[in-house]
Amino acid sequence: MQELRERIVADGEVIGRDILKVDSFLNHQIDPAFIQRMGQEIASRFAGAGVTKVLTVEASGIAVAAAAGLAMGVPVVFAKKKQAVTQQGELFSAEIFSFTRRESVHITVAPKYLISSDVVLIVDDFLAHGEALGGLVKIVRQAGAKLAGAGIVIEKRFQGGGQELRAEGIRIEALAVIESMEAGVIKFG
Amino acid sequence: MQELRERIVADGEVIGRDILKVDSFLNHQIDPAFIQRMGQEIASRFAGAGVTKVLTVEASGIAVAAAAGLAMGVPVVFAKKKQAVTQQGELFSAEIFSFTRRESVHITVAPKYLISSDVVLIVDDFLAHGEALGGLVKIVRQAGAKLAGAGIVIEKRFQGGGQELRAEGIRIEALAVIESMEAGVIKFG
Repeated sequence: MQELRERIVADGEVIGRDILKVDSFLNHQIDPAFIQRMGQEIASRFAGAGVTKVLTVEASGIAVAAAAGLAMGVPVVFAKKKQAVTQQGELFSAEIFSFTRRESVHITVAPKYLISSDVVLIVDDFLAHGEALGGLVKIVRQAGAKLAGAGIVIEKRFQGGGQELRAEGIRIEALAVIESMEAGVIKFG
Repeated sequence: MQELRERIVADGEVIGRDILKVDSFLNHQIDPAFIQRMGQEIASRFAGAGVTKVLTVEASGIAVAAAAGLAMGVPVVFAKKKQAVTQQGELFSAEIFSFTRRESVHITVAPKYLISSDVVLIVDDFLAHGEALGGLVKIVRQAGAKLAGAGIVIEKRFQGGGQELRAEGIRIEALAVIESMEAGVIKFG
């Protein structure tokens, strides 16, 4: 998506060798009209896949996932990172390691919102080591649902998560693919 | 908002005396088209207030805030609950106590996304004891920005947060106001 690559170049901040900060339009401040266009682009790439539900994980994935769900006319479920006292009973769950937060996080989905007849599109903001996406795939499998694939805003391909998951046969569509960020220079794939 | 009151009655689950679980369309699964209409309703109530930015806190407020921001044509900032390694330097911050999670949470906003010339509309999913809203108001004041008010999806008026903040002169618009939930019966205001 050309507009996204331009925004990454204009507003993105490379920290070290592998962190890309896009706080101005995705991870802290969001540009709602742009988010809407990205959601529509993800929806169009999975048109005809029979998607019945969009699945993401809080927090940065929610806005794009909601936009994709709106464009596809399906509900959006966001996995929770902490169990609220209002969450009860058996839950689908996975452990994911966050490299930006340097900690392991337990994510959960209530079984009533992901059922075996669902065709699930996973949507998330970043794909790097594949931890979050891998955890969400695990939850889709626990539900016995069908996985249509994953729509990702930015894939940092050099961190390898996408390759691993594609090797498992998962269809991944990224709106921008970054091949490297050596010396602060972003190279797109 | 009549549609919201109907959804709360149809899908809401009252737990104990003061917890309302609306996981089917707001807090775990979201109905994107409905969220969009709620965002538009919040935007219309603050039309003419000169709002330049919408402020919320992750995670459940994000989808409605994004919808309100889209309708108003302004950026949306979500306060973060954990400091990522990508967040550096001085931050606006507040401590808020979450009654549903029974813990205190530190929320932060990077100063570059909230400036003194901003006119801020706070958007959030619930207003109960006023902890989250109070914390966001504190952050708006730290920024020296003007507060247009707060657009809330569901206000549980019997928990008192709204009265306190209105007494401080803050304009609060709630799409549904709940006066009581005694014996599991939801009474709207």
